[in-house]
Amino acid sequence: MSDYIISESASAASVGLVELRTIDFESLALDSGLTLAPVTIAYETYGRLNEQRDNAILILHALSGDAHAAGYYEGETRLGWWETMIGPGKGFDTNRCFVMCSNVIGGCKGSTGPNSINPETGREYGLDFPVVTVGDMVRAQKMLIDHLGIARLLCVTGGSMGGMQALQWAVAYPENVASCIPIAATPKHSAMQIAFNEVGRQAIMGDANWNGGNYYQGDPPDAGLAVARMIGHITYLSDESMHERFGRRLRNKKALGYDFTLDFEVESYLRHQGELFTRRFDANTYLYITKALDYFDLSDERGVLVETFRDLPADMRFLLIAFSSDWLYPPYQSKEIVRALKGNGLDCSYLEMRSSFGHDAFLLENKDMTRVVWHFMESTARINGVKLG
Amino acid sequence: MSDYIISESASAASVGLVELRTIDFESLALDSGLTLAPVTIAYETYGRLNEQRDNAILILHALSGDAHAAGYYEGETRLGWWETMIGPGKGFDTNRCFVMCSNVIGGCKGSTGPNSINPETGREYGLDFPVVTVGDMVRAQKMLIDHLGIARLLCVTGGSMGGMQALQWAVAYPENVASCIPIAATPKHSAMQIAFNEVGRQAIMGDANWNGGNYYQGDPPDAGLAVARMIGHITYLSDESMHERFGRRLRNKKALGYDFTLDFEVESYLRHQGELFTRRFDANTYLYITKALDYFDLSDERGVLVETFRDLPADMRFLLIAFSSDWLYPPYQSKEIVRALKGNGLDCSYLEMRSSFGHDAFLLENKDMTRVVWHFMESTARINGVKLG
Repeated sequence: MSDYIISESASAASVGLVELRTIDFESLALDSGLTLAPVTIAYETYGRLNEQRDNAILILHALSGDAHAAGYYEGETRLGWWETMIGPGKGFDTNRCFVMCSNVIGGCKGSTGPNSINPETGREYGLDFPVVTVGDMVRAQKMLIDHLGIARLLCVTGGSMGGMQALQWAVAYPENVASCIPIAATPKHSAMQIAFNEVGRQAIMGDANWNGGNYYQGDPPDAGLAVARMIGHITYLSDESMHERFGRRLRNKKALGYDFTLDFEVESYLRHQGELFTRRFDANTYLYITKALDYFDLSDERGVLVETFRDLPADMRFLLIAFSSDWLYPPYQSKEIVRALKGNGLDCSYLEMRSSFGHDAFLLENKDMTRVVWHFMESTARINGVKLG
Repeated sequence: MSDYIISESASAASVGLVELRTIDFESLALDSGLTLAPVTIAYETYGRLNEQRDNAILILHALSGDAHAAGYYEGETRLGWWETMIGPGKGFDTNRCFVMCSNVIGGCKGSTGPNSINPETGREYGLDFPVVTVGDMVRAQKMLIDHLGIARLLCVTGGSMGGMQALQWAVAYPENVASCIPIAATPKHSAMQIAFNEVGRQAIMGDANWNGGNYYQGDPPDAGLAVARMIGHITYLSDESMHERFGRRLRNKKALGYDFTLDFEVESYLRHQGELFTRRFDANTYLYITKALDYFDLSDERGVLVETFRDLPADMRFLLIAFSSDWLYPPYQSKEIVRALKGNGLDCSYLEMRSSFGHDAFLLENKDMTRVVWHFMESTARINGVKLG
C-alpha cells in the first residue's frame, strides 16, 4: 500500500493550470450507419503518464459536462466539474495517475457537435448533425486513447451519463479496460428518464427561436433551453435537499407578492440556473445528448442484462456507487448492474451512500467516496502490476 | 347501518345526465386585499338534498379539474373526473347524499377567471386578474353553499389541490363542516412542489405567444402550456407505473429512428397529453392556480401546524388518504396533517394505500378507498344524527 495521504478537502490541492487540447480525426462510424467526418475531440489531461503507459484513468462527463474536469484555465478561476475527485491526493490521484477527460461527440465544448461547421454546407450542422449514441461517444474516445498510445485504461469512470459511458467502455472494449467505476448510472434509460428528457426537448423545440435547429445566425431558443435546464435541475436534487436549501423562504420580500414576479427563493434559484445555462450550452446539443441517453440500453434484444457481461475478462474490476436520495437514477438501477455482473462471477463492489443531495451527490465533495475510490484505484493497480507515479 | 350495497365497479352506475349551472355574486373579498367583482361560480350537483339540508358533500377539484365531477352532459359521453367515487352506491353515494362540485375562482371552466371579461375594460382580464389563493377559492364556495341554503356540510373532500381546499374549509369554516377527507394533499407546498410549478409557469411565460397574458385575440401559448402539462403529467405518475405502462416500447417502429421524431411510446403519450390539454385549458388559469397552490401554507407564522387546528370543534371528523408511490404529494405530508390533528385530540383516521400509480392514484378506481369512504360517510351521518336519503 502507498503511504500517500488522501486530501481531507477538495480545496486542499488542485491540478492547477490546465489547457483544453483538440485532436482531429478523419471520420467516425456511427451506430446509425452514418459516418461523421471530420471529427474533432476536445480533451484535457492531468498528472503524468508513466513509462509503461498503464496508469491512465478516463473520466467521462454527464449531460451538461465537458472536458474541463479539474483545474482552471489561464486567466480564469472556474474549477473543473469534478475538482472534488481529481487532483493530488484525491480519489483520482493525479500524483499517481494520468487522468483524461474529453468532451463527447455531439457536445458543444470543443468536440464535433451540431454547432460545428458541416463541411458539406459550410454552415453549422443544426439538425443535419447525425444522431449519436453513447456507443458512438465511446468509439470516439477509443480513437483518442489510441492516439495517446494508451493500450489499456486503468479505469473508466463517471457519474450519470458518465457512468453509462464507463459501462459502455467495459462492454465495447473489454481488453482495454482494467476497471470501471459507474456512479449514479443505469443499465438503460427508463420510461421516466425518457419522459423527463422528452419534456426538455419539447421545451426547446417548442421555442419559436429554435426554428428547426437553424438558429445559429439569429436568436437562440434561450427560453426553451432554460426551461429544459430547470426541469433537469429539479430532477438532480431531492425533496429533502430542496426543503433544507430553500424551504418556503421568500426572496427579497417580507410577504407574498400576489403577482407573478418572484416570491420564493427556489423560484429565483431555478430561473437563475436556467439563465446561466443558456450562456454556456447549445440547445441542439441538449437535444442530441438527451437522445443518446434515451437510446442507451445495455441489455440484449430480449431485455436481459446478464448476457451483456458474459464475455468480460474475469480480471475486470467494478465499483458501482449510488446515492440513497437519487430518484432520477435510483440505487435499484445500479443494483441491477451489480446483479448482472455478479451473475457472471465478476469482481464487483457496490457502495450505496446515504445522502440527501439526490442525483447531484456524485458531483459534491464526499470524503467516503474519495477514500473508497482512492483505495479501489490502489488495489486495482496492485492487482494489475501497475506502478503508479 | 344501511343495507345499501357499494357498487363493485365505477361503471356499474352513474348519476347520469347532469347540467352545469352558474350563479352570480356581486363581489368576493380576496386574501390579497383586492376585491373581485362580479363573480360567477359554475357548479354541478348530484343526488337529492334532504329536508334537513344536512346530507350535502362538497367535492373540491384539483389543478386541471372542473365542476364536472360525475355523470355526463346531454349529447356527450365524457364522464366526470371523479366518476369512480361519485354515484349511486359509490364512495360518495348519490342515493344517500347531495353532492356538489364547483369550478374554482381563477379557473377556466365557467367560474370567473383570467379569461373572463374584466368589466373595467370590456376585455379578458389576462394578468389584470387578481392573484387568488386557496382561501379565496373556499370563500367563493362558501357563498355558493350559503346560496343553496346549506348551513353545514356533511363532508368536504378532494384530492391534491382539492384536499388542500378541504383542509382550508375545515380551518376557515369549522362550524360549517362535519367531516373532511383530504386525499393526497399537503399542509403546505414544499420547495419541490413550488419548483415544478415554477417550471410550468416559465414554460408558459417563455412562449412568445403568451404575450404578457394578452393572447385572447391571437394564438394562445399552446407550446408552453403543453410543456407545463407534460411536466405535470410525469409528476402525477411514478417510476414504477411508467415502467409498467410504457417501459422502453417503441412507437410504430421496429427499431430506433435515429432522428427527433417519436421513438418511444412514453414520448408519444406525453406529447398527446400536452396537446389535448391545450384544447381544454387556459394558460393563464394554469399560472393562477399553480400560484394559489404555491401560496398554500396552513401552518402559522412560526411554521407550526398544530396551532392551526386548535380551535376546530371536537366533533369534526377527518379521514386522510395518501398513496405509497405518490412522490409529488408523498405520504409524509399527509402524516404531518394527521400528527397535527391528533395533537389537538381530533378524530382522525389515516389510510395509506399501496399503489404503484403515483399521485394520479386518487383519480383511479379503487375498491378499498370506495369502501372506506362509504363507511366513513355512513358513520359520520350516524354520529351527527343525519338521515341519509
